[in-house]
Amino acid sequence: MADLPRRHKIVLDEDRLPTRWYNVVPDLPSPPPPPLHPGTLQPVGPDDLAPLFPMALIEQEVSSERFIDIPVEVQDIYRLWRPTPMFRAWGLERALGTPARIYYKYEGVSPVGSHKPNTSVPQAFYNAQAGVKRLTTETGAGQWGSALAFACSLFGLECEVWQVGASYDQKPYRRIMMETFGARVHRSPSDLTESGRRFLAENPEHTGSLGIAISEAVEVAAQDPTAGYALGSVLNHVLMHQTVIGEEALEQLASVGETPDLIVGCTGGGSNFGGLTFPFIRETLAGRMAPVIRAVEPEACPSLTKGTYQYDFGDTAGLTPLLKMHTLGHDFVPDPIHAGGLRYHGMAPLTSHLYELGLMEAISIGQTECFAAAVQFARTEGIIPAPEPTHALAACIRAALQCKETGEEKVILTALCGHGYLDLGAYDSYNTGQMVDRAFSDDDLAAALASVPKVPA
Amino acid sequence: MADLPRRHKIVLDEDRLPTRWYNVVPDLPSPPPPPLHPGTLQPVGPDDLAPLFPMALIEQEVSSERFIDIPVEVQDIYRLWRPTPMFRAWGLERALGTPARIYYKYEGVSPVGSHKPNTSVPQAFYNAQAGVKRLTTETGAGQWGSALAFACSLFGLECEVWQVGASYDQKPYRRIMMETFGARVHRSPSDLTESGRRFLAENPEHTGSLGIAISEAVEVAAQDPTAGYALGSVLNHVLMHQTVIGEEALEQLASVGETPDLIVGCTGGGSNFGGLTFPFIRETLAGRMAPVIRAVEPEACPSLTKGTYQYDFGDTAGLTPLLKMHTLGHDFVPDPIHAGGLRYHGMAPLTSHLYELGLMEAISIGQTECFAAAVQFARTEGIIPAPEPTHALAACIRAALQCKETGEEKVILTALCGHGYLDLGAYDSYNTGQMVDRAFSDDDLAAALASVPKVPA
Repeated sequence: MADLPRRHKIVLDEDRLPTRWYNVVPDLPSPPPPPLHPGTLQPVGPDDLAPLFPMALIEQEVSSERFIDIPVEVQDIYRLWRPTPMFRAWGLERALGTPARIYYKYEGVSPVGSHKPNTSVPQAFYNAQAGVKRLTTETGAGQWGSALAFACSLFGLECEVWQVGASYDQKPYRRIMMETFGARVHRSPSDLTESGRRFLAENPEHTGSLGIAISEAVEVAAQDPTAGYALGSVLNHVLMHQTVIGEEALEQLASVGETPDLIVGCTGGGSNFGGLTFPFIRETLAGRMAPVIRAVEPEACPSLTKGTYQYDFGDTAGLTPLLKMHTLGHDFVPDPIHAGGLRYHGMAPLTSHLYELGLMEAISIGQTECFAAAVQFARTEGIIPAPEPTHALAACIRAALQCKETGEEKVILTALCGHGYLDLGAYDSYNTGQMVDRAFSDDDLAAALASVPKVPA
Repeated sequence: MADLPRRHKIVLDEDRLPTRWYNVVPDLPSPPPPPLHPGTLQPVGPDDLAPLFPMALIEQEVSSERFIDIPVEVQDIYRLWRPTPMFRAWGLERALGTPARIYYKYEGVSPVGSHKPNTSVPQAFYNAQAGVKRLTTETGAGQWGSALAFACSLFGLECEVWQVGASYDQKPYRRIMMETFGARVHRSPSDLTESGRRFLAENPEHTGSLGIAISEAVEVAAQDPTAGYALGSVLNHVLMHQTVIGEEALEQLASVGETPDLIVGCTGGGSNFGGLTFPFIRETLAGRMAPVIRAVEPEACPSLTKGTYQYDFGDTAGLTPLLKMHTLGHDFVPDPIHAGGLRYHGMAPLTSHLYELGLMEAISIGQTECFAAAVQFARTEGIIPAPEPTHALAACIRAALQCKETGEEKVILTALCGHGYLDLGAYDSYNTGQMVDRAFSDDDLAAALASVPKVPA
């Protein structure tokens, strides 16, 4: 550190772009439990998934290879924004008066402002290669939908997005971004699908949920042989694509001679968290470092810290395979917090499995503390964070202030997985004192869990 | 080039951050005509400017030094985002099928998403150093206001912004960004100033203009001895602060063995254009290169291509010194095009002088062509541009397509001075076919020029 007293950016040369994705599964003491067919309760096979996904992605989903080559065509597109910068948070450290050294890996430089294109690009690539003509998907905060819209435009695929109603109404800019990349965007629930019509019949003003939007996108893809479905988180292959974040971060930290003591990431479906931490978990399992690895989720949607670890559907209508995961129940509709990307009832099966294995810990934080952290970060580091990573920043600040008390010079690493330029409405709510937190009570939990299906262990 | 077949980013190491700003004035065959006091018609002296600006900036405004050291405190903050990346536009080139090589210097990585913090930070620094407690300013598109809000928060200054009414109504996200950085934002015209009340009396629904907002901010600063005024463009010192763009670009192009044949920049007040081109003009005057240097302005506000070169006020109420510049008249209110940052009646006196000296050329383009270029750029390069630099991109595409006809392998450089994440409303207008162009007729011109004061040459 001494030789770089004021350096803020830790840049990785384009030559060092990762050429392989890392699959954490074979390095684990046991594999995660397989997805089950909801009818037979038997593990799903490739044929069950083939109506939705191209075979290349299905193979990645169940692969036992530690590394999978990134196609050159995907690398070429990654080069538009990757390697992404890492920053030393000098300004924030000084404001906190902490002896901790805080580093953040910044994914907001991507075409849509988040980590999501790391997986939308390969997903679109493999689908195009398999002859698929259009991709359907859901989007909550809008980050994933715009990432897929961008990727589809590159490979000449049609893109159709079901945007959660509340987000569609509140975030017209996200819709416009998707349309600028050539996508068609529907407010979910829509009258275009059986699932959508069912929820609209219950409530014509339904503001939707991620689970419902997934149901709609899956239903449409399953009925059209030329269409595929793309998911922005949760699945193994999605988390694997995101490991380019952690691989670069490993190299960037090493280039300044640092080893992390604490790694913090926000978790919604789990892809940003997995992407950052899996390469560090590999190094930890190999005995080369021993960081604490901490997931941070919103108090309003605490799937890891309060959910149950059981088989549940990935969507609300029950169209997907059953996934063994930490879940609040597929019927659960979280409070309308501003971090739309963290409002998912479940947690990636792989992240859930790591949590059960004791390879990581988890905490939850309310959004008011998160936005206070974000405003402090913006004023000292010059980036307005997306609502999702404000959770990670709040946890970093907690840890850094603890170091201030103990005098420990801990090295803290986090992922700033997106910027908040399209989420400024949330900041307005905070700036004007209108933001509220709501505790998640035991009654809430009992009500939420009621929809988890009874599947034999 | 052959050794970097797929490299997209040309990154400059943080060690290569410029440590000096470049002042083009002493290298010119003649100096630009001085600002005049509107009462005496004599050149204004430092004392005339002292109520608004700290002496350090006044000295920079009239300096005859070729280089001025960047204070270490300012360099430290520049490090939050500088050096900025340069990109080779491989995707756009391929889509156009052009033999031209297109490079763009990207300023959208800054804290507020544009080049504006390059000058807001030193302006806030020098004001704080001089004991100023608050800064007032105007903002059109909102880029400048948010840049000053950010800079003021770093140096503990209060920041008060008059945002052009139309922009305040249409772009709440820009206001929220300013407030997130701690600024107070007023819709202009406001009832807080004599100037504002005058325009409101004429029309209570007045949607404002940049010239009116300047009048309000200047009026408030002039009446408060603890306040200063900051301008985001037009003045010599502002353009000089922006030369960090061109200095870095020079080095980045040289690092890949390229010499530009054509440099294109959009022009509103002239600071992005000056920042990019002045260092290249120095190299041109020294005989080390001979690029064509081309300004691009909106058809709806053609100060260089249709305005007159005369002394005029910088603001609408006539509170500023008289500036010798290309102007459409200080009463001129341009059509409400989406490129709010280019809707200024005048052009920087220094840029105007260079134009008169024949060191650069200028063209104007309508906004529909600009947004068509921007959408093509977004889909191939993965960045949604701000409305202002879409003008430069449209001109780059024109030039690249000409190269396609002639087979010339020209090297084209442009500045992508900001991203369009907060301007997606403009894209919605384009995507849905509602965007219109309006030709600027001779009658329009005659009406516009009517307000240019008669000042003896």
